[in-house]
Amino acid sequence: MNISFLQELFSSITQRDALLWRRSDGKPVSHEQVVDACRLVLESDGEASSIALASRALSGYASLDDEQKTRLFYTLTDDFAADPERIDQAWQAYHATRGNLELQLLCEACEPERQELLRRLNLTAGGTHALVRMREDLLTRLREMPELAALDADFAHLFGSWFNRGFLVLKRIDWNTPAAILEKLIRYEAVHEIRDWNDLRRRLDARDRRCYAFFHPAIGDEPLIFVEVALTRGLPERIQPILDASHQAIDAEEADSAAFFGISNCQTGLRGISFGNFLIKQVVLELQQELPQLVNFVTLSPIPGFRVWLDQQRQRDQNLLEDELLQRLTELGRADWHTDSEVAAALGEHIRPLAAHYLTRVRNEQGLPLNAVARFHLGNGAELHRINWLGDTSAKGLANGLGLMVNYLYVPDDIERNHERYSTDGKVMCSSSVRDLRRRARKFLKGDHRT
Amino acid sequence: MNISFLQELFSSITQRDALLWRRSDGKPVSHEQVVDACRLVLESDGEASSIALASRALSGYASLDDEQKTRLFYTLTDDFAADPERIDQAWQAYHATRGNLELQLLCEACEPERQELLRRLNLTAGGTHALVRMREDLLTRLREMPELAALDADFAHLFGSWFNRGFLVLKRIDWNTPAAILEKLIRYEAVHEIRDWNDLRRRLDARDRRCYAFFHPAIGDEPLIFVEVALTRGLPERIQPILDASHQAIDAEEADSAAFFGISNCQTGLRGISFGNFLIKQVVLELQQELPQLVNFVTLSPIPGFRVWLDQQRQRDQNLLEDELLQRLTELGRADWHTDSEVAAALGEHIRPLAAHYLTRVRNEQGLPLNAVARFHLGNGAELHRINWLGDTSAKGLANGLGLMVNYLYVPDDIERNHERYSTDGKVMCSSSVRDLRRRARKFLKGDHRT
Amino acid sequence: MNISFLQELFSSITQRDALLWRRSDGKPVSHEQVVDACRLVLESDGEASSIALASRALSGYASLDDEQKTRLFYTLTDDFAADPERIDQAWQAYHATRGNLELQLLCEACEPERQELLRRLNLTAGGTHALVRMREDLLTRLREMPELAALDADFAHLFGSWFNRGFLVLKRIDWNTPAAILEKLIRYEAVHEIRDWNDLRRRLDARDRRCYAFFHPAIGDEPLIFVEVALTRGLPERIQPILDASHQAIDAEEADSAAFFGISNCQTGLRGISFGNFLIKQVVLELQQELPQLVNFVTLSPIPGFRVWLDQQRQRDQNLLEDELLQRLTELGRADWHTDSEVAAALGEHIRPLAAHYLTRVRNEQGLPLNAVARFHLGNGAELHRINWLGDTSAKGLANGLGLMVNYLYVPDDIERNHERYSTDGKVMCSSSVRDLRRRARKFLKGDHRT
Amino acid sequence: MNISFLQELFSSITQRDALLWRRSDGKPVSHEQVVDACRLVLESDGEASSIALASRALSGYASLDDEQKTRLFYTLTDDFAADPERIDQAWQAYHATRGNLELQLLCEACEPERQELLRRLNLTAGGTHALVRMREDLLTRLREMPELAALDADFAHLFGSWFNRGFLVLKRIDWNTPAAILEKLIRYEAVHEIRDWNDLRRRLDARDRRCYAFFHPAIGDEPLIFVEVALTRGLPERIQPILDASHQAIDAEEADSAAFFGISNCQTGLRGISFGNFLIKQVVLELQQELPQLVNFVTLSPIPGFRVWLDQQRQRDQNLLEDELLQRLTELGRADWHTDSEVAAALGEHIRPLAAHYLTRVRNEQGLPLNAVARFHLGNGAELHRINWLGDTSAKGLANGLGLMVNYLYVPDDIERNHERYSTDGKVMCSSSVRDLRRRARKFLKGDHRT
Repeated sequence: MNISFLQELFSSITQRDALLWRRSDGKPVSHEQVVDACRLVLESDGEASSIALASRALSGYASLDDEQKTRLFYTLTDDFAADPERIDQAWQAYHATRGNLELQLLCEACEPERQELLRRLNLTAGGTHALVRMREDLLTRLREMPELAALDADFAHLFGSWFNRGFLVLKRIDWNTPAAILEKLIRYEAVHEIRDWNDLRRRLDARDRRCYAFFHPAIGDEPLIFVEVALTRGLPERIQPILDASHQAIDAEEADSAAFFGISNCQTGLRGISFGNFLIKQVVLELQQELPQLVNFVTLSPIPGFRVWLDQQRQRDQNLLEDELLQRLTELGRADWHTDSEVAAALGEHIRPLAAHYLTRVRNEQGLPLNAVARFHLGNGAELHRINWLGDTSAKGLANGLGLMVNYLYVPDDIERNHERYSTDGKVMCSSSVRDLRRRARKFLKGDHRT
Repeated sequence: MNISFLQELFSSITQRDALLWRRSDGKPVSHEQVVDACRLVLESDGEASSIALASRALSGYASLDDEQKTRLFYTLTDDFAADPERIDQAWQAYHATRGNLELQLLCEACEPERQELLRRLNLTAGGTHALVRMREDLLTRLREMPELAALDADFAHLFGSWFNRGFLVLKRIDWNTPAAILEKLIRYEAVHEIRDWNDLRRRLDARDRRCYAFFHPAIGDEPLIFVEVALTRGLPERIQPILDASHQAIDAEEADSAAFFGISNCQTGLRGISFGNFLIKQVVLELQQELPQLVNFVTLSPIPGFRVWLDQQRQRDQNLLEDELLQRLTELGRADWHTDSEVAAALGEHIRPLAAHYLTRVRNEQGLPLNAVARFHLGNGAELHRINWLGDTSAKGLANGLGLMVNYLYVPDDIERNHERYSTDGKVMCSSSVRDLRRRARKFLKGDHRT
Repeated sequence: MNISFLQELFSSITQRDALLWRRSDGKPVSHEQVVDACRLVLESDGEASSIALASRALSGYASLDDEQKTRLFYTLTDDFAADPERIDQAWQAYHATRGNLELQLLCEACEPERQELLRRLNLTAGGTHALVRMREDLLTRLREMPELAALDADFAHLFGSWFNRGFLVLKRIDWNTPAAILEKLIRYEAVHEIRDWNDLRRRLDARDRRCYAFFHPAIGDEPLIFVEVALTRGLPERIQPILDASHQAIDAEEADSAAFFGISNCQTGLRGISFGNFLIKQVVLELQQELPQLVNFVTLSPIPGFRVWLDQQRQRDQNLLEDELLQRLTELGRADWHTDSEVAAALGEHIRPLAAHYLTRVRNEQGLPLNAVARFHLGNGAELHRINWLGDTSAKGLANGLGLMVNYLYVPDDIERNHERYSTDGKVMCSSSVRDLRRRARKFLKGDHRT
Repeated sequence: MNISFLQELFSSITQRDALLWRRSDGKPVSHEQVVDACRLVLESDGEASSIALASRALSGYASLDDEQKTRLFYTLTDDFAADPERIDQAWQAYHATRGNLELQLLCEACEPERQELLRRLNLTAGGTHALVRMREDLLTRLREMPELAALDADFAHLFGSWFNRGFLVLKRIDWNTPAAILEKLIRYEAVHEIRDWNDLRRRLDARDRRCYAFFHPAIGDEPLIFVEVALTRGLPERIQPILDASHQAIDAEEADSAAFFGISNCQTGLRGISFGNFLIKQVVLELQQELPQLVNFVTLSPIPGFRVWLDQQRQRDQNLLEDELLQRLTELGRADWHTDSEVAAALGEHIRPLAAHYLTRVRNEQGLPLNAVARFHLGNGAELHRINWLGDTSAKGLANGLGLMVNYLYVPDDIERNHERYSTDGKVMCSSSVRDLRRRARKFLKGDHRT
């Protein structure tokens, strides 16, 4: 395989992308005009002339205001749907013959017209990215306007195909990455805010830091998702030393652990299209190859929602928590409780077990852990390895997770088995120390909740 | 947009591709084992563990012999289909409610299971290329085993999405292109055989030659389709001077015409997924940008099938052609008729008009020109511009097209209109010289055929 | 010529460079140890074993403190010189024979040993850059320690050869350039400070801005010199609108002028090796190719030193300036004189003519303009085109040049001729408006100084 | 260090190179015109205007015929020399003062004017390559016209500086390398002819083959030197299995040895500028990194000149060889002696010891081995490891070296020490088996020659 040759292939894609968005600088158009343009796209025969039409429709869309976009989405949902009569006829034909051809025709009849529309809009330069942004607009409306879910289902169906993992490309990000991409990291970082370019540089340029992202050829230099990694000696318990501006970097060769401390999705419009699991596993492979001495692959993850859950338990009839514990938790009301080492230590003794309980026993309606981060890593085949007290003492960390940070451990050889047991039986793999914490939680819980 | 950064993105794709095929070096497996592997792929939850399973299935497939492949195709068609009962139930639910959700479920019920299987096989490194090759195998069986058409329809549906023009990349090919890609040009050239590396070099490296290809990021350095262009002064009539080893190159800046003299599809497995029209139009754009002085964009195309058609007319009751013409055509029986300039000239006077008639009046069942090359260019919006006598005096050219070569002219401003008229009314745009020829054809045709 | 292949060639250079500097992390060494290492380098036979020795010497040097470096420079000057006796003998042999071989031997005898030493130090990975930095250290000492000039001459001689214009590479810098290079621009910008990354982005990423730099393959991603360009309609008079954060960008295609508003040398260690003239001329070529509609290539340059000169004239016996003028100039003592439009206008009427006089009539000992910026551009073949009052109202601009900015105009067809006349006769090419100003200066100057 | 950015830097160099040579297509000029152009280059001040002049001089040179080139070389030697009077004066000033400045002036006075000329010619686009080709022309004349040696010395001096190893770039060559470079390998291969593209592909594309070349940024895609490597199990004795079209490739990971079987210099004009030693050592480093399991780095080298030497010994008074041996050697007169296994075996018993004697004992005037290949590898620090009988049974191999092939072994840890002993004492490092052979040679040699 030849790399240098292939590397040039991207140029036209990205240049075309630029062209499209220049075009959309034009004067605004109305919702009706965009609908007309979409009709024309569908009426054309999908060949070259479609490209110009599709381009017109997309740049028209980009110039709509919020209300017009809403109207467009409704029109797409209602008027670019499937034809019930045609479906019925197709089903009858199929039912009579059970033939493959009839099935194919039924299948086509069922497909809403807007799927073909989206495929044709994608023909145009930069079309893929434009459609991702269009779905981003759509998603913001979904809660208020559940009728648009059908349209969203079409986006999701096509994106699942277009953003198939086979088309994604993993790329290391460092201080030599173009500024145009780096600034997107600053913008997209969701877990631990990157304050400015100096902060970014510290995170990327130290010998003991790595960053990787997935890209898709058709949307050019827009990362889809990225992950930040710290190379450490031993598993890290706390995030502040990692983010600290003055941290003493170690040589990558001296590290025995790789800690994933931030995973950020960049394209809201791709919600539900899963990349994160592939990303972690591929980064593990990359790191194993670069640094064969690494033995631990672990996350340093927050517990968002833990505080909310705990507060609920404290209030709602208080039938879960023992009185002694409730008493203790009142200390959380004190300002700066976490800086008083004695108070903090005592609180930790109570809260860490509760967190172990929360992460492993508290489930959602599907019987999976209520905590989304836990669901993500356990579903990927990781083990719940350690719960660290005062692992994140930032305001945000204290507010969301009472300062707790969790290590999920990825043991390459166990991933498949863990994943299997989790996805069939909902089994949460825990280290003995977490099991121990969970046992200690019993004495803080009222009888029925002891598990 | 940043190019140099993006250029590196390909590396992982291509490296993974290499890995996959190494893996398939293993010991052969049976048809049943591949079927089992496919089942497992579908039963897994589509996450990371699927990749390993998909990879196993694909490399298993690669080791099957022809008969086992056939059996696998039948199994996929019959056992990885849709469930009639589920379809019926879904239709009933939809029919009762006409709801969007019910429609979506019906749509899913109609989709043969093998579509999801193919999507998951595509997760794997090099999966896309492997699937293209799998369909190549399938296509060779289609004529003999029409039952497999349903399976082929699923391939075509997915490939239409994956090879959407928005994902293709145009790339100039020249003498600085890696040898690994150039050798594929030698292999794939379908129109005018490239004899060896010296011949290839002559075609690529002269100042008055260009070559472009479409690539797809996920199948790396395999071209999908390529086109060869000669830069000329005036529209070329004959192919031999262009292919001639000793042709005197002119400076690109001196040319006023770009002649497309060979378009070759490279991936049999992508049959029916249309690229050619996009390719020609994008190459016209590229050339206009590089060489603004170009005024003509034209093909130098063969008329494959013309001789067969003519021979049929000469035999089949002979009710089409006037006797004088039939008499004249007997000269074609002489060896080397084309080297006797007098004979050749006289034949040309008769055959060129007939070719004009053939290309414009002789239609297939859909009412479109019988000649496939004409259909392609006219459908793209080109004009039938000139019919050149003795334009290809190679053995193949004489055998297939009596030595005729055709110029189809692409006038950028007329393309959309021509295409429109062709696709709505079947109208064939002709130059006045071709119309003139067609008129002259009347005297060689029996009454009913004069049009 | 093949570009994509060649593009990969740099990788080894830069990787080796990184290696070298990692090596120098080691423990500090003494001046004597570095001298010993240098001796060993010279005694080795210049083959592969030299590389390790050279690498040792260079990393040793990097660990020296300031005083030890000074001692090393003296040792190199005194003890790695040429051998007088050998020179005398070689001259005698040459004098006797006048033979070519004898001349060659004399030439070799004259060459100080340290030249060969520097050549061998350059063998090592990253050696070139290390030597540039070594000369940077040397230059800081030169004023205080003029005896080191002989050593500096050897550096200059070799750098002149190694940094021959034929080895330099022009590269456009934009927002897609790697951050590692961009941060060097922030550091090196000498003319109009780049405050931070946002400021940099504004300068690079607007449609009407360009930036170019020269690089040398052997010192990788360190720019040698760069120039910033604004694309404008009409020749710009003032720098503030160009630097202004909120300037309204125009489309590059709408500009008729390219204004060079900042040229910064990046490598102090290359002082005296001239790039700037080549840079401007090559950038003019690049811009002409990209934007053929450009008609003016002009600088917007400061007049550093003008205020100092003027202050001197005001004090030193005051025999140059007429009393009326001196009276007027006292207004410069007022705070914020430049914001009082009436005062400013009146001052401008006096000072612009004086500046025209200063730039064209006031010469240094070589008979060339005293002003270094004027020398540079006039020597390159530019014309002194316009003197703009209040062209730079920044504190620095007011302090150094009383707010004046100058347009030097590069007319491609006149460059050679202008350069010729300047370099043979010291002739300063001026526009008629500047000549006019100069005439008006007469009435402010005492008799003898009117020219 | 940033690679992807730097990779683009080459483009301008190579594009300029192409431009230069297009320019030289012009009409031929006379020797006098080129001399005039050279004069102008020297009289210009070395700034931008020089580039146009230099370009004119170089393209003028390219259009000269052989005789005019000869005349030009004489003019450069005679009229662009140093000025004796100026030298004498400079020496006197230096002799009087012994000052550094005076030395510098003397040094400048001694330098022939043509060195500055060559430096200025190098300013131009593609100048470096043009000068290398100019020296190539010069070298062909040197034997006949020894007076031109002074001019050649200037070339050699400058090339030594410009082609300093610090500026060279190692690059792997494989089947993905651009065809434009690969065809140069076919042309330049000096040791074992590459017959055609298929042969080339076999040598590059097999899993157990490697090829590396040195490039210089300023002469773009012209390799300077390249080496071919076979990865083998055990040290190879014979070249034919390596070159064999049908050889069974092994996986690179299974090899324990890397055998260098062809080193070819590509640029005649760089004769005497040494790269080969650096190349081998850097390739050893590359291979160690890629394939850590490799334990042997060895050549498979010919013994050119051995047969000539042996034939001389057989004739010239025959005082070296014992009669029995002479008798035996007459069998070499038989056609196809090497295919008669019995005869061949007997001859081998005699000739291998003689070869050991020849390679280690027979010296040139400098006391170094007479055999140039031995001098090269032993000088690099290799050990004479094994002498293989019938290692090359090609016509050329039999003719030059009686079919013998030699393994020189590079033991990374011993290289420096071996090199040291060789270069100080002329000590040839041998394996015990070679020493053994040498001992056995005694009985074939007459008394005085036994060593």
